[in-house]
Amino acid sequence: MPARYAPKTAAGRFFEDFRLEQTIRHATPRTLTSGDASLYSALTGARFAPQSADTFARAIGYPESPIDDLLAFHVVFGKTVADVSLNAVANLGYADCRFLKPVFAGDTLSAVSQVIGLKENSSRQTGVVHVRSQGFNQRGETVIDYVRWVMVRKRDAGSDAPETHVPKLPEAVSVVDLGAACPRIDRAAFDEELSGSPHRFENYCAGERIDHVDGVTVEEAEHQTATRLYQNTARVHFNQFTEGHGRFGRRLVYGGHVISLARALSFNGLANAFHIAAINGGRHVAPLFAGDTVFAWSEIIEAAALPGRDDVGALRVCTVATKNRPCADFPWREGEGYEPHVVLELDYWALAPRRP
Amino acid sequence: MPARYAPKTAAGRFFEDFRLEQTIRHATPRTLTSGDASLYSALTGARFAPQSADTFARAIGYPESPIDDLLAFHVVFGKTVADVSLNAVANLGYADCRFLKPVFAGDTLSAVSQVIGLKENSSRQTGVVHVRSQGFNQRGETVIDYVRWVMVRKRDAGSDAPETHVPKLPEAVSVVDLGAACPRIDRAAFDEELSGSPHRFENYCAGERIDHVDGVTVEEAEHQTATRLYQNTARVHFNQFTEGHGRFGRRLVYGGHVISLARALSFNGLANAFHIAAINGGRHVAPLFAGDTVFAWSEIIEAAALPGRDDVGALRVCTVATKNRPCADFPWREGEGYEPHVVLELDYWALAPRRP
Amino acid sequence: MPARYAPKTAAGRFFEDFRLEQTIRHATPRTLTSGDASLYSALTGARFAPQSADTFARAIGYPESPIDDLLAFHVVFGKTVADVSLNAVANLGYADCRFLKPVFAGDTLSAVSQVIGLKENSSRQTGVVHVRSQGFNQRGETVIDYVRWVMVRKRDAGSDAPETHVPKLPEAVSVVDLGAACPRIDRAAFDEELSGSPHRFENYCAGERIDHVDGVTVEEAEHQTATRLYQNTARVHFNQFTEGHGRFGRRLVYGGHVISLARALSFNGLANAFHIAAINGGRHVAPLFAGDTVFAWSEIIEAAALPGRDDVGALRVCTVATKNRPCADFPWREGEGYEPHVVLELDYWALAPRRP
Repeated sequence: MPARYAPKTAAGRFFEDFRLEQTIRHATPRTLTSGDASLYSALTGARFAPQSADTFARAIGYPESPIDDLLAFHVVFGKTVADVSLNAVANLGYADCRFLKPVFAGDTLSAVSQVIGLKENSSRQTGVVHVRSQGFNQRGETVIDYVRWVMVRKRDAGSDAPETHVPKLPEAVSVVDLGAACPRIDRAAFDEELSGSPHRFENYCAGERIDHVDGVTVEEAEHQTATRLYQNTARVHFNQFTEGHGRFGRRLVYGGHVISLARALSFNGLANAFHIAAINGGRHVAPLFAGDTVFAWSEIIEAAALPGRDDVGALRVCTVATKNRPCADFPWREGEGYEPHVVLELDYWALAPRRP
Repeated sequence: MPARYAPKTAAGRFFEDFRLEQTIRHATPRTLTSGDASLYSALTGARFAPQSADTFARAIGYPESPIDDLLAFHVVFGKTVADVSLNAVANLGYADCRFLKPVFAGDTLSAVSQVIGLKENSSRQTGVVHVRSQGFNQRGETVIDYVRWVMVRKRDAGSDAPETHVPKLPEAVSVVDLGAACPRIDRAAFDEELSGSPHRFENYCAGERIDHVDGVTVEEAEHQTATRLYQNTARVHFNQFTEGHGRFGRRLVYGGHVISLARALSFNGLANAFHIAAINGGRHVAPLFAGDTVFAWSEIIEAAALPGRDDVGALRVCTVATKNRPCADFPWREGEGYEPHVVLELDYWALAPRRP
Repeated sequence: MPARYAPKTAAGRFFEDFRLEQTIRHATPRTLTSGDASLYSALTGARFAPQSADTFARAIGYPESPIDDLLAFHVVFGKTVADVSLNAVANLGYADCRFLKPVFAGDTLSAVSQVIGLKENSSRQTGVVHVRSQGFNQRGETVIDYVRWVMVRKRDAGSDAPETHVPKLPEAVSVVDLGAACPRIDRAAFDEELSGSPHRFENYCAGERIDHVDGVTVEEAEHQTATRLYQNTARVHFNQFTEGHGRFGRRLVYGGHVISLARALSFNGLANAFHIAAINGGRHVAPLFAGDTVFAWSEIIEAAALPGRDDVGALRVCTVATKNRPCADFPWREGEGYEPHVVLELDYWALAPRRP
């Protein structure tokens, strides 16, 4: 077949296809609507007051309800899958994720990634790729900026290894870098009855642990629908025919769905921590499958004032999610690893209103 | 832990926590959107013409398609769960439910309840709480007003019983109190081909029974998604891990989802009864589970002219829903109780256009 | 019961109820919203760029993102079910389907069918009915026009046969009749990185075969929710109680859901074939059930320039979908029939941008 009639199907990049500092513009841009917000809420249980009600959002200083931070994150993430992780063996982690502008219904998100790290593994079968991905709105403003790294197959074990480069990543986003996506909040207008909790920034202390009590069972139709909402096409989430013969014998739930469920469960205890300002790191410790019930608990790692802002403070929260195991006794690490039911460890900064 | 670092998780009210005439403002306000309407329709099968098409709605006198009455009801109801029925043993019933203003996409609903009845049970383990709940729009107008009563656990069987107070509830909403949420309808513009039925108010007579014929099987993903859409957090609907060890061994379908399915099925026979003006009473006679198929039939209890209105008339309808049993022979009561497949008895007033 | 209290439930038309040239206006009109678009995308995986992003749509010449062609088709089709195919034994096919105007969020679709063919079968138990159905927007403009034919039960085998009339249908929509729903496209503004593929009209050649690689497993909750979104009330999709005793022992997936899944899978290989201009024919070769995994491949039948247009060209595509069988070796016909895993053969015209 002549070149103009070349195979049309995208096979995804292999390790050899990444070059340091390479920039990849991702398909497909996506206009977020109130329909997406509705579906996100119905699939995950998200119900923080500013994202739920225009009236509440306006009272505290937003022009209208912002799109849930994680919905925006998943949409940006979803775009990168076809270009970055279609041939990934594992999603190893993400870090340095900052939310820089609020997203509203009607905004169109697109995504660009830059390769910032490459390291072949000693097996020569795979390599680790670091990318910094940015989500933009229709005005070209960066709304989300984060790093993730994945282990990607090589096309050919014999091909030359690139020069090793592993980027230095912050252990956590610095407090000075938080809050860009949060307008100035009118503390007095933050109605604690409507928001669902009397606990403000000052009520939380480092070391405090909160069991979020409730559990939610995941169905195949739910995680598939959510993952398609984000236009995330990773195959392991959708194809029982192939996965049935695979490592787990079943479809894997998208890790981002687990994050969203844990965040929604955390409403019970963190109802006023209404905005995710940054994700310091996330680890999907074990796979989740349909039929599993997700529970979660959180530890407050740090409570930090934001420089120059007396309206909101930042809580650094570590949320741990488990499957099929309530969290009243805060299951977490065990020896070198994790308690066997733990599926997620998510370290993030959330903003909460200060006392009036 | 000092008081400011008190436990953050809401445990829900016990019987002792309710006081007569106490007012509870509920979290979380919710802006309803066309996305919610779309999802409601797709999850329940609702397809009454004025709610389905702006053109039809405008032709008969609405400014645009109103939000389905039951979607608005479920959203208001959902808000009350965390404050009223988190520790409920049983939802005993509702009554005197009036729809007072139409709700449109863009409206924000919030809810307030007042305790209007308290009665400790003879076991001293539980008590019955009556609340009158009101849903408001963003202008502070009451859109829905209803009473429900629940059996709630006591924290401590030994604690003092409150003075017994059981409110007097009407057997049915009076005809003079119907229609506030329905604008004046242009009868001649009510297109019977587009609405799906030639039968108007005058075509129905008391005692008439209608088998709605069709059946719809409920999936876990559907009822969970619907119940989350309403931000109803009652645990029995979502947590298979805990419910698997519970009374039924499985998750319970939210009773409101059954109501919505029965109402959607009733389109086949009651397509022009487009607006629920009031719910006189509802009983969830038996639990519904995923995998069950819902059927429904209705009896016209009364056909009443509305004082001062010649555009619409009111049909008092009793809709009975069953599980796994077609309704051609109108299964209903049996002895003191109900035929064993009956899951719902719903007594409501619906408005239908009069003849031009 | 006097006539005015006649049975209210629609039983659907039998073969005797159709008359040649009879016109049927269908219930219920439906306003399509961004919520419907969101749900459609989340249930099917649709992600063609113009339908996904207002920015992309505007850049190439649309006023905003159009509603997915197949969502509009399913909504129009859904309206015809209660009047045309409630008593159908089989949906035999469709042909001559043209998309004539773009549909946008906020548009209200209604549908009218005309009986254009009648032929009693030799068994005298059934007959074949051809209808031409048209979908209109709120301005009365035809947006979709197509023919379908169904085998419908007779009420009474002894009743007289109508005069036989079988309409002549085109084997394919003519190239001169394509493109009315597609505004003039700015080829240079069609961003191939954002759209997900570098392959334009000129890159495809007749005879080319494309395996769309991915597979997607269908869940009961997904196909039921999608089919309700279209207000399609065909009973076989929803009622496990009845279907459990039926021919297959289970609910059938709506054939249109299979078409949408195959079209969404075809993004991988046909990402720039952004608009369905016509459907020449469709055959549901075998039933699909929940739990099945859908795969698809396509053959380019023809690549045709559009008269008077240098912005887009038309690709005549035959997409074949299978269940539980990858399509790397392009399974299709076998002897007189089809390879046993084939579920769908869809012959359609899609438009793709020409080279700048």
